[in-house]
Amino acid sequence: MKKVEKDMGSDSDLHVVSASIKKLKEFGIETEVHVMSAHRTPDLAAQFSKNAKANGFGVIISAAGKAAHLGGVLAANTTLPVIGIPIKSSTLDGLDALLATVQMPSGIPVATVAIDGAENAAILAVQMLALSDEELSLKLEKMKNDMEAKVIEKDKKIAEQIKSL
Amino acid sequence: MKKVEKDMGSDSDLHVVSASIKKLKEFGIETEVHVMSAHRTPDLAAQFSKNAKANGFGVIISAAGKAAHLGGVLAANTTLPVIGIPIKSSTLDGLDALLATVQMPSGIPVATVAIDGAENAAILAVQMLALSDEELSLKLEKMKNDMEAKVIEKDKKIAEQIKSL
Amino acid sequence: MKKVEKDMGSDSDLHVVSASIKKLKEFGIETEVHVMSAHRTPDLAAQFSKNAKANGFGVIISAAGKAAHLGGVLAANTTLPVIGIPIKSSTLDGLDALLATVQMPSGIPVATVAIDGAENAAILAVQMLALSDEELSLKLEKMKNDMEAKVIEKDKKIAEQIKSL
Amino acid sequence: MKKVEKDMGSDSDLHVVSASIKKLKEFGIETEVHVMSAHRTPDLAAQFSKNAKANGFGVIISAAGKAAHLGGVLAANTTLPVIGIPIKSSTLDGLDALLATVQMPSGIPVATVAIDGAENAAILAVQMLALSDEELSLKLEKMKNDMEAKVIEKDKKIAEQIKSL
Amino acid sequence: MKKVEKDMGSDSDLHVVSASIKKLKEFGIETEVHVMSAHRTPDLAAQFSKNAKANGFGVIISAAGKAAHLGGVLAANTTLPVIGIPIKSSTLDGLDALLATVQMPSGIPVATVAIDGAENAAILAVQMLALSDEELSLKLEKMKNDMEAKVIEKDKKIAEQIKSL
Amino acid sequence: MKKVEKDMGSDSDLHVVSASIKKLKEFGIETEVHVMSAHRTPDLAAQFSKNAKANGFGVIISAAGKAAHLGGVLAANTTLPVIGIPIKSSTLDGLDALLATVQMPSGIPVATVAIDGAENAAILAVQMLALSDEELSLKLEKMKNDMEAKVIEKDKKIAEQIKSL
Amino acid sequence: MKKVEKDMGSDSDLHVVSASIKKLKEFGIETEVHVMSAHRTPDLAAQFSKNAKANGFGVIISAAGKAAHLGGVLAANTTLPVIGIPIKSSTLDGLDALLATVQMPSGIPVATVAIDGAENAAILAVQMLALSDEELSLKLEKMKNDMEAKVIEKDKKIAEQIKSL
Amino acid sequence: MKKVEKDMGSDSDLHVVSASIKKLKEFGIETEVHVMSAHRTPDLAAQFSKNAKANGFGVIISAAGKAAHLGGVLAANTTLPVIGIPIKSSTLDGLDALLATVQMPSGIPVATVAIDGAENAAILAVQMLALSDEELSLKLEKMKNDMEAKVIEKDKKIAEQIKSL
Repeated sequence: MKKVEKDMGSDSDLHVVSASIKKLKEFGIETEVHVMSAHRTPDLAAQFSKNAKANGFGVIISAAGKAAHLGGVLAANTTLPVIGIPIKSSTLDGLDALLATVQMPSGIPVATVAIDGAENAAILAVQMLALSDEELSLKLEKMKNDMEAKVIEKDKKIAEQIKSL
Repeated sequence: MKKVEKDMGSDSDLHVVSASIKKLKEFGIETEVHVMSAHRTPDLAAQFSKNAKANGFGVIISAAGKAAHLGGVLAANTTLPVIGIPIKSSTLDGLDALLATVQMPSGIPVATVAIDGAENAAILAVQMLALSDEELSLKLEKMKNDMEAKVIEKDKKIAEQIKSL
Repeated sequence: MKKVEKDMGSDSDLHVVSASIKKLKEFGIETEVHVMSAHRTPDLAAQFSKNAKANGFGVIISAAGKAAHLGGVLAANTTLPVIGIPIKSSTLDGLDALLATVQMPSGIPVATVAIDGAENAAILAVQMLALSDEELSLKLEKMKNDMEAKVIEKDKKIAEQIKSL
Repeated sequence: MKKVEKDMGSDSDLHVVSASIKKLKEFGIETEVHVMSAHRTPDLAAQFSKNAKANGFGVIISAAGKAAHLGGVLAANTTLPVIGIPIKSSTLDGLDALLATVQMPSGIPVATVAIDGAENAAILAVQMLALSDEELSLKLEKMKNDMEAKVIEKDKKIAEQIKSL
Repeated sequence: MKKVEKDMGSDSDLHVVSASIKKLKEFGIETEVHVMSAHRTPDLAAQFSKNAKANGFGVIISAAGKAAHLGGVLAANTTLPVIGIPIKSSTLDGLDALLATVQMPSGIPVATVAIDGAENAAILAVQMLALSDEELSLKLEKMKNDMEAKVIEKDKKIAEQIKSL
Repeated sequence: MKKVEKDMGSDSDLHVVSASIKKLKEFGIETEVHVMSAHRTPDLAAQFSKNAKANGFGVIISAAGKAAHLGGVLAANTTLPVIGIPIKSSTLDGLDALLATVQMPSGIPVATVAIDGAENAAILAVQMLALSDEELSLKLEKMKNDMEAKVIEKDKKIAEQIKSL
Repeated sequence: MKKVEKDMGSDSDLHVVSASIKKLKEFGIETEVHVMSAHRTPDLAAQFSKNAKANGFGVIISAAGKAAHLGGVLAANTTLPVIGIPIKSSTLDGLDALLATVQMPSGIPVATVAIDGAENAAILAVQMLALSDEELSLKLEKMKNDMEAKVIEKDKKIAEQIKSL
Repeated sequence: MKKVEKDMGSDSDLHVVSASIKKLKEFGIETEVHVMSAHRTPDLAAQFSKNAKANGFGVIISAAGKAAHLGGVLAANTTLPVIGIPIKSSTLDGLDALLATVQMPSGIPVATVAIDGAENAAILAVQMLALSDEELSLKLEKMKNDMEAKVIEKDKKIAEQIKSL
């Protein structure tokens, strides 16, 4: 099975992206995690991306804040799908990272998830890999059922909770 | 090879999403196009999505404007990756569709591209399918090279163009 | 008298929507509260909505954050009026939920109240039910008078409060 | 059957709100249309609203642009449900009217529809009146079915349209 | 000398508007403070405004949050200048109150100051009253000079402060 | 009677601010119009403002687009009230000019009207001058009545207009 | 004298950036113009930037729209100052390009000018080069004087223009 | 070597701009720090700027919040490059200061960095001065290499950190 490369623009983003890493582990996906920067280590970022396919990666996940260019830089250097997580920073509530990640020009898409949406980035990566891996696909099906069950369970409990209102 | 399902919320979006359909044709991807609505034909949309995998589809592309729920409705009913194109409508410059498409809750990602970014939705779909199809992967590589060549050509011509300034 | 169904996308929204539930109780409206999700339990949500009228409900109140689709999903499956409360989440200050709730396409309205405006959702539901229930109408009139009286009382106290400035 | 009062802040909004009036006619709802202004004819607006219930109205629809206060002024003076249509004007793409209409304080809701969403305002009014009028309810059901059928028809035609791409 | 009427939509706004009241006291302007609401006490608000001139007021200052209509309601009922302070509330960072206050239609201006800009509302009121009161005008001149002096003093101290950097 | 100085940042703004000039003429206010720029003629702007009071002006109206600093520059150099009209330019729909005009720091207010709200700037200026000029005050009263009458007349005509819908 | 490199993300931006090129010509600055893309020709862009200083360039101007990464890519690969012009594209009115250009992380600044502010990018480049070129500095002084004179001339004409109002 | 003048609108901004001052010290740039205000000390600000070049300054850095005019005022009075740092204040998350700083009219650029981007302002100033100072240029090169090394080091540590996830 292809691996997933998870790159973040700064190690300070780890508190957000850890949800992504955990989820990939749950699905048994081999994951490499890197700190790299579109602006501080541009060559490295380009190099990683150029070699990702040859190195056995199937999907690249990028997490970056502010003028979040990392997803774009990675996507510019590979034909693998690149998933972008816009990270909320101290100003503008994540809108800057969202627009800088999603508004890519024609030819170079970055598959963008919600601001700080680390878990969904992982699930999206799994969905992509599951296209040729029926076992993963079944795991996704199971996750979907579990989520449904959990909501139904919460629904049962809510009646109790609201009695005290 | 898996097919791509391309769903749009209204036939008035065709002028935007046609770029998506053309690009998929270029890559030789079998594509089915549907008009369906999260709100006017909710059962149909859910049904299509539930059956998409069994019907041989690998990726679903959704295009919708305003409170763009179509991507979310499709994603809620499948484990296939769903790509969302936010469509700009007569007010708010596409911001409403962007936020309604990308800000999905944990568990149900929609891979969002730029507002009106129909061509990139197709390329992203091809990238996903190419994960298990080396021929497609080569075509993507070629497209990337062609894009690069085209920019270089434009760069050569620009010197001429600016002389008249 | 018809009942009100109060659905929220997540039990974490309870701290906001409890104001809604309390207000409905004040008016003596029978209320059923559910946790359901447009994306995690789409069938359930659709089913609830389809059966709501037959089950004696008159109005449905939906509360959801981020790409808040719950209101739209419920409205798509019923002819009952659906009221939407956009819930503020950790990014974008509620703007995403507001636009995803209010910008509905022609044919399927969601009656949207302010971000986190749970109390007003309840009052709006009461106003709808009061159209054919004069007793409720009188209670609304009384609530309006009470609000007025409370403001006037505060106005009287303010002179005292500002003396210390 | 109760009547609907349709108030607009300026006669220049007629091109937008006419969709609302037509839709109410389709449903056979008696409708009175007025031009009135929260700021130029405040007393008149308050008076209309105060008398609306006694004059046989069930729902008030307000349409206003910019710092759209008309909905709030009408809602302040009645216990009838007030529906607000934010009108897009020459600047800010309707965001000003949306926020000025929807962000009402606790106690005085305005049921807000999409920017320029005149048709939905009418449908929402019909849904409210249909709570005690089964005939109207059947008409809504029919409209829903017609909308569904129309989308399905468009879906059938789309295959033809995309052949030429 | 004419008085200033200072109205706020809720007594919870007092922590913001107190800056306004203090500043008016500094200038020796007689000020009346009221809690009144465009939506909960609409008649009262209209009445206050209609009588303001006759009651010896020269300027009205309004402070309100969310869909801040109070300024507009007061302005609709008087020919006195009305100053609006948009108050930041729990969502949208004050943008809603700003747009609802400043985007008034032609004919009924509200002189808007910054979000939570209570002190400036007072100064603006003083500037208006000073148009026919040379003593006030001199006080404004003095305040301007004091402000300048204070900045110059801070400038002198800054060199010391930055030594430790 | 004191005069009004009407300054605009560029003569290209004349199509907007002419509404302001006309309105001041209607009220018989002596008005001087200038093109001046906070950035291209900073000394001139400062000079004009410093001398305005001595030269017989009572109110200064400023109109500027983009990073609209003119209002702030004028206000910094006078104790007269300064009214700011944010002008919409080719990008951002006037939001930049609005924020740059209204968000003034404590001590230096600019009385801001709506984006492109030239007419209201004039009316606000008249309201300020009318504080010590009962004749002007009566004219304002008359204008208010005329506006009301005009709306009522439009209201009468609207019934005719909607028959054809 | 050092040269200026003017890079744009697409030749479709020429209508905007031509103002920049003309202005540099006016100042007699040798300018090279290139079309290059952060995403379609990433290596080329990096290469150009890495060699810019050795090739005699002093300042790099970048113009790009949407998720405008070009400025960041160029800045990541040089120690020369990089000026970024955010270009308005078909959606979001240039806000996306502005945020993607200006919100750079610590360590890699991009000197951002207004959306579509091509002329100012040129002037800023000249200001930088003039730091060590007194002749250029004098030309800037002259330009400033000319601008001032032009505004003063317009001011003289405006009196005539407004007579017809 | 030319000096850098660092001006801030208020001493309360010191916690942000100190990063700027430290960075300039690291590069051995002689720096003068001032508190000055576009609105409270307009003459002083203009004077400083007019004399800056003669007093040996090469670059001016301005930091201001809200309707941040300081950068524009300084730029209006000099031909030196002016760098603007928009400061986030209590409302609107810095968007007001960003737009008021960056959206300068043609002729008077302000080189804008990220909201609260004090460190980048310093680096940009160094880049400008380095155009004629090879030693500074080498220091910038070294800083770039150090940044790269630091990211690579973090990258090495991240593998350890994520083991505990």
